[in-house]
Amino acid sequence: MERKMTDPCMLNVAEMIRQIQRRKLSPVILMESLLKRIDLLELSLQAWVTIDRQRLFQEARCCQEEILKGKIRGPLHGIPIGVKDIFYTSGMKTTGGSKIFENFIPNYDATVVARLKGAGAIVLGKTATTEFAFGDPAPTRNPWNREHTPGGSSSGSAAAVATGMCPAALGSQTGGSVLRPAAYCGIVGFKPTYGRISRYGVFPLSWTLDHVGFLTRSVEDAAILFGILSGQDPADPNTSLEPVPDFKGSLKSSRKPPRIGIVREFYRENSEEQVWKHTAETLNKLKRAGGEVREVKMPASFSAVQDVHRIIMRVEAAAFHEKLFERHRGQYRPKIRELVEIGLLIPGVDYLRAQKIKRLFRREMDKVMEQYDCLLTPATSSAPPKGLSSTGDPWFQVPWSLSGLPSISIPTGLNGEGLPLGIQLVGEAYAEGKLFAAARWCEKALNVHLSPNPN
Amino acid sequence: MERKMTDPCMLNVAEMIRQIQRRKLSPVILMESLLKRIDLLELSLQAWVTIDRQRLFQEARCCQEEILKGKIRGPLHGIPIGVKDIFYTSGMKTTGGSKIFENFIPNYDATVVARLKGAGAIVLGKTATTEFAFGDPAPTRNPWNREHTPGGSSSGSAAAVATGMCPAALGSQTGGSVLRPAAYCGIVGFKPTYGRISRYGVFPLSWTLDHVGFLTRSVEDAAILFGILSGQDPADPNTSLEPVPDFKGSLKSSRKPPRIGIVREFYRENSEEQVWKHTAETLNKLKRAGGEVREVKMPASFSAVQDVHRIIMRVEAAAFHEKLFERHRGQYRPKIRELVEIGLLIPGVDYLRAQKIKRLFRREMDKVMEQYDCLLTPATSSAPPKGLSSTGDPWFQVPWSLSGLPSISIPTGLNGEGLPLGIQLVGEAYAEGKLFAAARWCEKALNVHLSPNPN
Repeated sequence: MERKMTDPCMLNVAEMIRQIQRRKLSPVILMESLLKRIDLLELSLQAWVTIDRQRLFQEARCCQEEILKGKIRGPLHGIPIGVKDIFYTSGMKTTGGSKIFENFIPNYDATVVARLKGAGAIVLGKTATTEFAFGDPAPTRNPWNREHTPGGSSSGSAAAVATGMCPAALGSQTGGSVLRPAAYCGIVGFKPTYGRISRYGVFPLSWTLDHVGFLTRSVEDAAILFGILSGQDPADPNTSLEPVPDFKGSLKSSRKPPRIGIVREFYRENSEEQVWKHTAETLNKLKRAGGEVREVKMPASFSAVQDVHRIIMRVEAAAFHEKLFERHRGQYRPKIRELVEIGLLIPGVDYLRAQKIKRLFRREMDKVMEQYDCLLTPATSSAPPKGLSSTGDPWFQVPWSLSGLPSISIPTGLNGEGLPLGIQLVGEAYAEGKLFAAARWCEKALNVHLSPNPN
Repeated sequence: MERKMTDPCMLNVAEMIRQIQRRKLSPVILMESLLKRIDLLELSLQAWVTIDRQRLFQEARCCQEEILKGKIRGPLHGIPIGVKDIFYTSGMKTTGGSKIFENFIPNYDATVVARLKGAGAIVLGKTATTEFAFGDPAPTRNPWNREHTPGGSSSGSAAAVATGMCPAALGSQTGGSVLRPAAYCGIVGFKPTYGRISRYGVFPLSWTLDHVGFLTRSVEDAAILFGILSGQDPADPNTSLEPVPDFKGSLKSSRKPPRIGIVREFYRENSEEQVWKHTAETLNKLKRAGGEVREVKMPASFSAVQDVHRIIMRVEAAAFHEKLFERHRGQYRPKIRELVEIGLLIPGVDYLRAQKIKRLFRREMDKVMEQYDCLLTPATSSAPPKGLSSTGDPWFQVPWSLSGLPSISIPTGLNGEGLPLGIQLVGEAYAEGKLFAAARWCEKALNVHLSPNPN
């Protein structure tokens, strides 16, 4: 028997599931390990807004007792998960990163939170978010270098998962808010097809662009959460009735090298030199492993994507915030305030034109995707930028938040300064299984494992 | 054998079907009768924009020959139907009532036109419409009194059907453009549930409000057209997959008195005195025939309906016309010009708020409709107004164009000046069969048959 065991806090979700259900790991020990990790790092990283320690030990003990009685609530039994502070949690503060809601305690759970709990998971706590999931930074720092941003808006979720404070966390993406912080922190970020996961009980930013996503340390973990959280929800009329693919089957099919489309247009000219060089090296590794790589011809509508995204986000954010903004203008921080102020002025015809181009782009991308298992781009235009006044740019995620195609980022290495870089893979609509298979294949082919040493 | 036959032009669609298929009526004789009627009346009524006589005789002869060979193309074999001039007709001018399109000849048919032809119908010609189906009047006159408006925007369709120039015609309704002209001309007007009939190949006015509808001389004829024209169309993404009810079955079930909800709120105060009095008398007749009449408690959102409708229509009309308007501003008539000019200025947040209230009103009405087979209101606020500078007000139809609930108007009598009055019945979403049954029951109970004498 191996003597030295990995500290439980550093296990992936898949491994936690195995060890807990085989009674090799107690939920109480796991909880202690995670809270110890949080004690060690939270002061300098500031990933969390709310952690209710007393309740956590109670819940972990309860899970442990159930296991001893042979009772397993669901696949995530006893596994603590971080929840971005824009998801409603019944009886637990939900601030949306805003002063206005600093004492707001919802009396119901967001659908995804309810599904997590239903699967046996424990809500470890609420992770820091930018204000209303837009651009005004959370206090969170990047675990690879505290003077750099962890990205946003799912800042706390990214930093917490990267450092073993929790194995996985919920995030949300309207522009680049799941995959960018994941890439900046060296972990996996995933968002599904638009309409695949319910946004009921989540502070909206822009409802035709908002996606719920997750931050994990492996593709397999993202697939596990997808299996639990996806599917139609009557409470969110935008969720789709499309059947959810079998994620286990899809991971097994990950032995076949994928047909990868590299997107050079826009991404080449907007990537820092080191980023593009690193991406080219990564592509070479994937080719050597057998990946079939071709350059993608992007459709005409691609050139309008950033502008169209901005118009839709501004108008819908303004529509949601309008009344609140009238009463609490002074409590809005500058970036979200400007978003709402400009959004209030944009004519409806501009909004409708933007929505029309959005639909066109999706239709054109649906056709492009017929030829590939996934598209590949650098995950971000640069490594995590220095400074905490900005959370970086969302440009590289925007086309997929706009089109609603599923996307996943995986870490691919460190730059010269020891900061993480990654790639973003984009899949066909409603075919998340195929995307997970491609991402798992790349993950294995690249065999990069990043873990910051933030002590 | 009865010697004196009704002039074929005055037969209903149902009777034409019977007589043609039993070889009692030749499509050529029918065509001659209709064209003779047009010759007699068109100069003073101006219901038509385009009639291609040569083609019509050819087509009628062709239908006749097919019958002699035992070939029937479909239920409408050999029956001429009028088509409002905003529906694309392949190879036939489609002006949209606008000077800009005075020479426009589409190279494909609107889906409903293609379905008419597929069912064997002959497109008799294009009927006059207000400019782009909004408020600038067509030259058409009311067959009951030429100094009065026939209503709009389906002006020509209403006048033509009322006078036996065609047995039925296509119309469209964004505000009140099918049921109002039908009521003003003393015939039946029907619009289905929103999303039930394809708008592909139809000039849009406001795509979340636009409905295709028909003008006929009986409820049965409306049901026949509904059976032929309704159903999902991939070319119009707003068409619904909801199954289409069996209209024949529904007409058979029309023996049972319906549960009628009378809507007093808004309608009472906006009806002319004679209209409300006439409606009360009509209600009494229905009660005496066994109808169960209760007053409806309307939901809170009902009070916002007219404003919400106006905002959505303005913004969507402006979005559709924007580019055309830049190039051809001088060719827009005053009402549609003002609509576009104001629509261009309305902020997106107002549009989104309006759409939100629209959805709320529909949800609230869906609940109300659980208690009734149909709602009943006067069809219009007044008899057809004097003068040709306005087509009357669409207020009484607006709530149902906005909510998307199906509605039908039937004539109920004449006012003191010999001008037609009618009632409007509103049904449950996707339950047009139930609405037809209720309307057929009312039609029989009232037993009112109006026919203008416009010679």
